[in-house]
Amino acid sequence: MKTIIVTGGYLPLDFLKEQIKKRQVELIICADSGADALYNAGILPDVLLGDFDSVDEEVFNSFVQQGIKTVRFSAEKDLTDTHIAIKYAIKQGSKKIIILGATGLRIDHTLANIYMLEKFIRHAHLKIVDTKNSIELVSDGSSRIYHKKDYKYISLIPISRKVYGVTTEGLKYKLQDATLLRNSSFGISNEILSEQGAITIKKGLLAIVQSND
Amino acid sequence: MKTIIVTGGYLPLDFLKEQIKKRQVELIICADSGADALYNAGILPDVLLGDFDSVDEEVFNSFVQQGIKTVRFSAEKDLTDTHIAIKYAIKQGSKKIIILGATGLRIDHTLANIYMLEKFIRHAHLKIVDTKNSIELVSDGSSRIYHKKDYKYISLIPISRKVYGVTTEGLKYKLQDATLLRNSSFGISNEILSEQGAITIKKGLLAIVQSND
Repeated sequence: MKTIIVTGGYLPLDFLKEQIKKRQVELIICADSGADALYNAGILPDVLLGDFDSVDEEVFNSFVQQGIKTVRFSAEKDLTDTHIAIKYAIKQGSKKIIILGATGLRIDHTLANIYMLEKFIRHAHLKIVDTKNSIELVSDGSSRIYHKKDYKYISLIPISRKVYGVTTEGLKYKLQDATLLRNSSFGISNEILSEQGAITIKKGLLAIVQSND
Repeated sequence: MKTIIVTGGYLPLDFLKEQIKKRQVELIICADSGADALYNAGILPDVLLGDFDSVDEEVFNSFVQQGIKTVRFSAEKDLTDTHIAIKYAIKQGSKKIIILGATGLRIDHTLANIYMLEKFIRHAHLKIVDTKNSIELVSDGSSRIYHKKDYKYISLIPISRKVYGVTTEGLKYKLQDATLLRNSSFGISNEILSEQGAITIKKGLLAIVQSND
């Protein structure tokens, strides 16, 4: 099952509408403060989820009146709304999860959301998507194909201190069984040459960021 | 010596002016495409540094005519302008380095710039500052004091998989010899209670992000 999770970060309405239309997902989960953006975009989620402390009352009531399922969690200090939403999505059988609103001006939230993907890496294919970037994590023994389509750049950024055995196909700057270091910016701004490229890694945790200027 | 490095990311002019005025640094280094922002803000750097491929010609010529020192590097694919600027600053004896324009909508650049701080952690006290955040990395055996002043939140985000022996003083959520995990969002949105707080870590690499909503 393909799922979109809408959380409370930076999320322009046009972008949100375009993503919901384009992705054709079977499940839309709204994580707490993501409700305002959905409401303003006139989009109904399938599930509204969180402790509902930060949701606008009018928005919440409107969704409830329209029959949207609500799942209330008590505010657990060490689990974010996004975390709870991902767990819920996986429990429902989601194998592809696109997270919108997970980035923004607060660098701590952005970092924490990217790192959180690691926790679920064996359970689903998760992607954080915003107006400029598509971010995912890949780990030991992964081989993935990436499509050029909407993005100019593809960057390989180690999250673990080292990533071993990185091999690329169809990228401008070729890598063959290379070791990438977290504190070097070696893998930034590579490009897919034609329609698609492939990235294989043997060991480590790597962020793949597709982006536009 | 206290230094500001201006690079080519998101950098509103008012913010740039305010930072230059407030920080009272002895050295302003402009890393290549950071030149446009400085020029538009009417601020002269001490050094203009880079391969100068992406600098506006009028800006470059104006700085040269005003006697600004230029240091030209050939475009090395695996060193970014910001990297070269930090190396240069440290070589000049900079012990405190504030980096402006290191964040923005391109998540790959933002991540790479944060990770780059690790490379220089033993040589200088480096900080990435933008309109909402102040970011630094601390490692093994560090004990640092943070001032509440301009920020509401202080987040502790592991860059290494685990950070051991984290103890806080004067923070809302207390930690005593705690172990923080990278894939948990446990350390997000802590707060300094009065004027200042302290964070000590025994082992690992931790990002400390002070921020405002």
